[in-house]
Amino acid sequence: MAGGGVWLRGAAAGLVLSLCLVVSCRAGKLLVIPADGSHWTGMKPLVEELGRRGNQVVVVIPEVSGSLGPSEHTITLTYPVPYTRTQLQTIQRANLDTIMASDTSNDISRMWSYYQTLTVLRNYTRNNCDSLLSNQDMMQTLREQAFDLMLTDPFLPCGSIIADSFNIPAVYFLRGIPCGLDDRAAQCPTPPSYVPRFHSGNTDDMDFLGRLKNMMMYSLESYLCTLMFARFDKLTSRYLEKDITYRELLGDGAIWLLRYDYSFEYPKPRMPNMVNIGGINCGKRAPLPPDLQEFVDESGEDGFVVFTLGSLVSQMPEERAKQFFDAFSRIPQRVVWRYTGVVPENAPANVRVMKWLPQNDLLGHPKVKAFITHGGTHGIYEGICNGVPMVMLPLFGDQDDNVHRMAVRGVGEVLSVFDVTSDKLVEALNKVINDKSYKEKMLKLSTVHKDRPIEPLDLAVFWTEFVMRHGGANHLRPAAHDLNWIQYHSLDVFALLLTIVLTVVMVTVKCCKVCFRKCCGMIWTMKMKSE
Amino acid sequence: MAGGGVWLRGAAAGLVLSLCLVVSCRAGKLLVIPADGSHWTGMKPLVEELGRRGNQVVVVIPEVSGSLGPSEHTITLTYPVPYTRTQLQTIQRANLDTIMASDTSNDISRMWSYYQTLTVLRNYTRNNCDSLLSNQDMMQTLREQAFDLMLTDPFLPCGSIIADSFNIPAVYFLRGIPCGLDDRAAQCPTPPSYVPRFHSGNTDDMDFLGRLKNMMMYSLESYLCTLMFARFDKLTSRYLEKDITYRELLGDGAIWLLRYDYSFEYPKPRMPNMVNIGGINCGKRAPLPPDLQEFVDESGEDGFVVFTLGSLVSQMPEERAKQFFDAFSRIPQRVVWRYTGVVPENAPANVRVMKWLPQNDLLGHPKVKAFITHGGTHGIYEGICNGVPMVMLPLFGDQDDNVHRMAVRGVGEVLSVFDVTSDKLVEALNKVINDKSYKEKMLKLSTVHKDRPIEPLDLAVFWTEFVMRHGGANHLRPAAHDLNWIQYHSLDVFALLLTIVLTVVMVTVKCCKVCFRKCCGMIWTMKMKSE
Repeated sequence: MAGGGVWLRGAAAGLVLSLCLVVSCRAGKLLVIPADGSHWTGMKPLVEELGRRGNQVVVVIPEVSGSLGPSEHTITLTYPVPYTRTQLQTIQRANLDTIMASDTSNDISRMWSYYQTLTVLRNYTRNNCDSLLSNQDMMQTLREQAFDLMLTDPFLPCGSIIADSFNIPAVYFLRGIPCGLDDRAAQCPTPPSYVPRFHSGNTDDMDFLGRLKNMMMYSLESYLCTLMFARFDKLTSRYLEKDITYRELLGDGAIWLLRYDYSFEYPKPRMPNMVNIGGINCGKRAPLPPDLQEFVDESGEDGFVVFTLGSLVSQMPEERAKQFFDAFSRIPQRVVWRYTGVVPENAPANVRVMKWLPQNDLLGHPKVKAFITHGGTHGIYEGICNGVPMVMLPLFGDQDDNVHRMAVRGVGEVLSVFDVTSDKLVEALNKVINDKSYKEKMLKLSTVHKDRPIEPLDLAVFWTEFVMRHGGANHLRPAAHDLNWIQYHSLDVFALLLTIVLTVVMVTVKCCKVCFRKCCGMIWTMKMKSE
Repeated sequence: MAGGGVWLRGAAAGLVLSLCLVVSCRAGKLLVIPADGSHWTGMKPLVEELGRRGNQVVVVIPEVSGSLGPSEHTITLTYPVPYTRTQLQTIQRANLDTIMASDTSNDISRMWSYYQTLTVLRNYTRNNCDSLLSNQDMMQTLREQAFDLMLTDPFLPCGSIIADSFNIPAVYFLRGIPCGLDDRAAQCPTPPSYVPRFHSGNTDDMDFLGRLKNMMMYSLESYLCTLMFARFDKLTSRYLEKDITYRELLGDGAIWLLRYDYSFEYPKPRMPNMVNIGGINCGKRAPLPPDLQEFVDESGEDGFVVFTLGSLVSQMPEERAKQFFDAFSRIPQRVVWRYTGVVPENAPANVRVMKWLPQNDLLGHPKVKAFITHGGTHGIYEGICNGVPMVMLPLFGDQDDNVHRMAVRGVGEVLSVFDVTSDKLVEALNKVINDKSYKEKMLKLSTVHKDRPIEPLDLAVFWTEFVMRHGGANHLRPAAHDLNWIQYHSLDVFALLLTIVLTVVMVTVKCCKVCFRKCCGMIWTMKMKSE
């Protein structure tokens, strides 16, 4: 039992699950298959809120995971996986090493490293899904519950596969899928002339070379993604016993809940079943633990700085950490740092290191002056929401692009974590804290972000419950899903029109030639006769 | 004085206007330039609500118009126009005659008639705008008020022109502009492979011939629109003294409030600054006048039918009207009909003809059984909102397409008003009233339509006030506006890539040829030597 939630281990929990669901008689029955890591951080508030509002929420997670765990107002069910916690940590560590060792000097190399990392992660999630799908007891138990809806993160494929197999509508919760598979699956146009591709280093304002690069990145990522999602495609068609790709399966999703907001993202076309819920993780704030509250309250006029590199990275090589400690000793602000590595003996007194920190609660404190972040979307939204200027040290994945978006808006400075020095750190921190333009721009962005007709969490709950009430959202499904690539782009129509035009031109030219010849012939004969 | 509103005539009202605005100190200052006819029916509730919520709302309308007039909680200002009410009515009558006389048997002819009518209307609105823009006293008075925002219907050009001239953001209120100028101006993709063009007779599910026709209609309407908007382009560039088309000017709009909802429209891509507020006119319901209440209350189990052909058409040729009276005498329902023509002596007792009828209030009555409508969007939304099956008699404009959308959803029957007979009418009415599937499908559509996270009127007010609070909505403006047609479609990028590929291929072929010749030459020489 966790909070107001129920926590059941293993497939044998099926009977208990049935009892739990039969006893209660509530609004709707949801099956939730979340993704691990920071993905769960975003989805958890929605899952808990759905449970709190009276829905029956069953969350299915692997027995071994990074961040997944019990949640309130839900029933959590675990299934066995063919790896131990140590093995999982080894994979994560290896991935981190790949990232840290990667050459980040150019976009192609960064993209390659990203896709290498992702392929490892994808194989892990695929195996994970395989464990669930082949767990016949668990699948049977779930099938019997006759859920109304699947709420899932399409970063891993089992949610969509199970939704199709159980014949229930799916609602997706995500920021995006690598290589823009979300836009492709939802039939959403993303013109490469002004929608910057990830890892291109572009903004939405591109010159000719920028657009050329964007187009090439688009083609390259299409190719890489075909490789990367091949195993998902296989799993999908094998389990569903039909010839279908993962992209096609995703296209059946009723609603896409996207952690998307234009205070952070570039404006681009959307589809009717895409709902923007960017900033969903910034809604609630809790009081700080007393000792931490005291530490930040007493930071004086200089205030304090929050520093975290996300849920995956809580330490760094000792030499690099020293640069940070050194930098912090040279600024008047106090620092709250999520860090589990070695603390040097002469660590400055203004630094408080913690194994975990309440990021959003700290960023909401009136004395916070700056936020040192790796540029994950959760952190960035919390920074925007609380109006805190940032010093950003991107590590991998979408973080490079995220921080670039913030930097061009003038609300933060970017440093490379791979060659950071205490001088660079001090300079960047002093800049974002003392140059008022960073704070002003961030406050403006924050005001726009928070000025919305309905809170993201309420919107996400509404659309999830809408799909349950109506058994889907078919009226929002574009007919583009019924067309193939050639039909969608009207290439067959153009081909016919071109054929007609060419035929008309050719026939006209032929006729002209024949007429010309006849005329010439007649003139020739007349000339001959006159001679 | 009208309701809670102020009504000022002529340019001399400038001083009074200044006093009115100075005395009050409210939320925001809006200038409203609405379009005539049913366009005003849609916009009026928003304008009044904005006034009611404490904004200063100044509505500027011509002294002579069809439906424009005072509204509550606003200041209405009129300007002189170079035509009389009689002349305006003559134009409207002539337009109606063109419509009634038009051959509606094929799509091209219908489209042509539509564009003929529109061109007349456009010339009228253009002259209208010219009168306002050249009224220097009025323009000076308005400019001095330093409005925060222009709320306008882009069906007529003066709102956008004045917004640009006054350097204030514009919010557009519309259902759509002919030839999809709204989508083009907002840079919204509308793939002709699945977004049916008006007058094509297509749904979003098209076979090859449907898509071919759609593409051809798309090209034809592009051409017709270039002709139709040429005078708007001239007016725009003349008044603003810069080289700009009306489409480009429209692209500067901050927010597009679209009377759009997917219970009625086909799903297609949208842009971030497009806000769907379809069904905005169905929010409020007032009690019926006592005699009308009695008439419908006492309609017994058979209930009653509501019949109106919209704000423009309140009568019809006597012979045709007889067909309706005859049909109504053969059904058990009572009929409430907006009709100002000749009533035959033997008119059936179950028919109540009225000069004007409270359409939405009647459609909300529990005993209403069917709605005979011309298929204007207001009527259709009110029908959907109240869940009333329809018999539809489209007259002109978008009505053909509107009724087609309803018919394919199985919530109504379509008849041609040009060759309607009492038999056809009775058959259609009996069908939609007695075949329960019409009512069931309509109720389902109604449930989906009304199941929304926020009411359309509140959403429209929110976004209008948002633009005032932030001086625009720049964060929603796509960068596509900064690209020309070639750049947007990446044709320059493709041209370069194609050139590179062709050069590589040609060089490779050339090299191969040279090598081949050399090899052949060597073999030849060797052969010769060996011989």
